[in-house]
Amino acid sequence: MSITLNSPLDMHLHLRDEEMLSVVGPLSSESFSGAIIMPNLVPPVSTKEGLLSYKERILKACKNDTFTPYMTLFFKPTYTKAFLASVKDELTAIKLYPAGITTNSEGGVSGFDVDELRPTLDAMSELEIPLCVHGETNGFVMDREAEFVSIYEMLATNFPKLKIIMEHITTKESVAALEKFDNLYATITLHHLFITLDDVAGGMLQPHLFCKPIAKRPEDRDALRKVALEGHPKVMFGSDSAPHPQHAKESCGCAAGVFTAPIALQVLTEFFVKYSTVEKLQDFVSNNARNIYSNIEIPNKTITLEEKEFTVPQKYADVVPMYAGEKLKYSITEIN
Amino acid sequence: MSITLNSPLDMHLHLRDEEMLSVVGPLSSESFSGAIIMPNLVPPVSTKEGLLSYKERILKACKNDTFTPYMTLFFKPTYTKAFLASVKDELTAIKLYPAGITTNSEGGVSGFDVDELRPTLDAMSELEIPLCVHGETNGFVMDREAEFVSIYEMLATNFPKLKIIMEHITTKESVAALEKFDNLYATITLHHLFITLDDVAGGMLQPHLFCKPIAKRPEDRDALRKVALEGHPKVMFGSDSAPHPQHAKESCGCAAGVFTAPIALQVLTEFFVKYSTVEKLQDFVSNNARNIYSNIEIPNKTITLEEKEFTVPQKYADVVPMYAGEKLKYSITEIN
Repeated sequence: MSITLNSPLDMHLHLRDEEMLSVVGPLSSESFSGAIIMPNLVPPVSTKEGLLSYKERILKACKNDTFTPYMTLFFKPTYTKAFLASVKDELTAIKLYPAGITTNSEGGVSGFDVDELRPTLDAMSELEIPLCVHGETNGFVMDREAEFVSIYEMLATNFPKLKIIMEHITTKESVAALEKFDNLYATITLHHLFITLDDVAGGMLQPHLFCKPIAKRPEDRDALRKVALEGHPKVMFGSDSAPHPQHAKESCGCAAGVFTAPIALQVLTEFFVKYSTVEKLQDFVSNNARNIYSNIEIPNKTITLEEKEFTVPQKYADVVPMYAGEKLKYSITEIN
Repeated sequence: MSITLNSPLDMHLHLRDEEMLSVVGPLSSESFSGAIIMPNLVPPVSTKEGLLSYKERILKACKNDTFTPYMTLFFKPTYTKAFLASVKDELTAIKLYPAGITTNSEGGVSGFDVDELRPTLDAMSELEIPLCVHGETNGFVMDREAEFVSIYEMLATNFPKLKIIMEHITTKESVAALEKFDNLYATITLHHLFITLDDVAGGMLQPHLFCKPIAKRPEDRDALRKVALEGHPKVMFGSDSAPHPQHAKESCGCAAGVFTAPIALQVLTEFFVKYSTVEKLQDFVSNNARNIYSNIEIPNKTITLEEKEFTVPQKYADVVPMYAGEKLKYSITEIN
C-alpha cells in the first residue's frame, strides 16, 4: 500500500544552530514543506536582525528549496506595535515561554500580568501575529500544564482576536480548553501520542524520552490521540523535535527533548492507517495548520510512504532519535 | 551541639556482592549497628546455603564486629514450613517482590492468590518470621504503590499474626494503611523524605535520584515526613541505599536506586534537629525497629554527630551518592 502526503508541516521544531543545525536541518527540510522554528537559541531570537540572520543560516543548512522555515521571535512584553509592524513580514508567530520553564527559556515571562502583556498582545492581535505558548507553571511537574490552563483562559478571554497556540499539549485538561475557546489551538508532538510517564520512568529511566512537558498519564495520552486521529481542525502536528548530543542526554542532569524529525512521518502513517485514515493524517500534518496559520505560504511537496520496513538509525551524527534501532513499518520511498 | 545516637539500624539495605559489597559494606557497618539485607542478588538468595554464604561474605567485607547483617530470603510461595523452620534461626525476615517490579526481582510473586500464598505465610506467622514487601503493582508508575494498598489489606486481614512491613513507602495512601491494620509496619528511606518527582524530572533529569518506588507528590512526601518526625512507633528508617556503578546510572536505561548509606545519619540529624527532636530520631533510626523486630540482637554502638560541615564526596569508588559534592551541616565525629 502506498500513501501520499501533500506538503507536510511541522508546526513546532527546534533546529538549533551551527553544527547541530547542519545535522538536523536537512532531516526536516527533506520531508517537510515547512516548519515553525523555535527561537530559544542562546541568546534567544528577539530582534529583526537576529531573526533574519537565523533564517539565512537555516536556509543555508537545509539546502532545499521546497522547505520554508516559519520564523518566530522569543516573546517579550517590551515589543512595541511599531517594532512588531516592522518585523511582521519576516515572521510567522511569536513564542512565549514562562521564565526558566524549559531549555534556554531564562528570559521568558514571569507572572502573567495582563496589564503588562496587553500592549504587545493587543498589537499582535491587530497585526494578526499568532502567539505560540509553552504552557507550564512552575508547579509540581505532573500538574504544570493543567495549572496553566487558567492562564490560557485569561489570555483567550482578554485577547479574543489573538490566535493562541497551546504548544505540545500533553493533558486532557488542555484538550478540554481547546473546545472551550474559539481562539485556542494546539500542537501535538509525535512522542506524546505514544509515551506516558511509564515509558520515561516506569521501567529503567529512559533519558531519550525525557522532555518538557513531561509525558503524562495514559488517560492524557488517550485524549491527545483522540483529537489527533479525528483530524480535529484546531489541532496541528508539531514535533517539538529537540536534538541534544548523546552525552547531554545520557548524563547527570539530562537535557529535555526527544528527537523525532526524521521518523515522524513514518510513525504517524502507521498510526493513522491503523486507527484512523490517511485523510485525517493529511489534516493533522498539513491542512489544519494551513487553515489556522492563514499567514503562511507552503511549498508543494509530495511524500510517498510505503509499507516497507525502516530500521531507525542508532544515531544521526551524535543525536539519538526516538525508536533508535527499532523497526518501523513504513518507509518514505519518494519525495517530489 | 553534639548529638548521640545509640545503635542506629538501617532496616532496608542493598549490599550487593563481590566488588560492590567490598565498597559499600564498610560504609554501612561503620555507622550502623545492623541492617536488614535485601536478598535480590542474581540469582536471589533463596536457600539456606545461599543465605549463610552471603552472610559470610558480608561479614568478611564489613570488617566490623559491631555490625550485624540481618539476613533475608527472597520470598517464594513454595517455601514449606519444614524449610522455614530449618532456616528460622539464620534469618530475620523474608522479602516479597512482585515479579519484575524492580532490580533483580524477576522471580517474584505474580498475582496475589491468597490460597497459593497461604501455606508459606501461615508458616511464617507461626514461626514469627516477618514479611517485608515491595508494594507496587505493575500499573501506571505514579499509582503503583497506592494500588498495592488493597494487597496489603488482603495480606493484613488474611494473616493477622504475620508482621508485614511495607517497605520504602512513598505515598499518603500507605501511611493511611499503616493506621488501619495492627500488623502493618513501614520503612521510610532517606531520599523519600527529601525528594519528589520534581527533583527527579522537574528540572533536568536526575538519574541519581531515580529509584523504585519513584518519588511521588509533595503531599505524599509531607505524609512520610510527618510520621517519621513524630517517631511513629510503626515506622522505621530503612535507607534502601542501592549502589550502582556511575555508568549504569548515567546512561540510556538508567538503573533504579539512590545511594545514601554513608550520608544518611548526617542528613537525618539535621532534619530532626530542625523539625523534631533527637529523641524522635532515636526512635526512627533504632528504637522502633527494636520493638517491631522482636527477633533481632543489636550490637551496642554510639554515634556522635556534631554541627560541623561535611562535604559529601563526589563518589565512593565508582558510586555517586545522593548530595554528591554538597555540604551537609552535621558530621559524624565519634563512633564507639
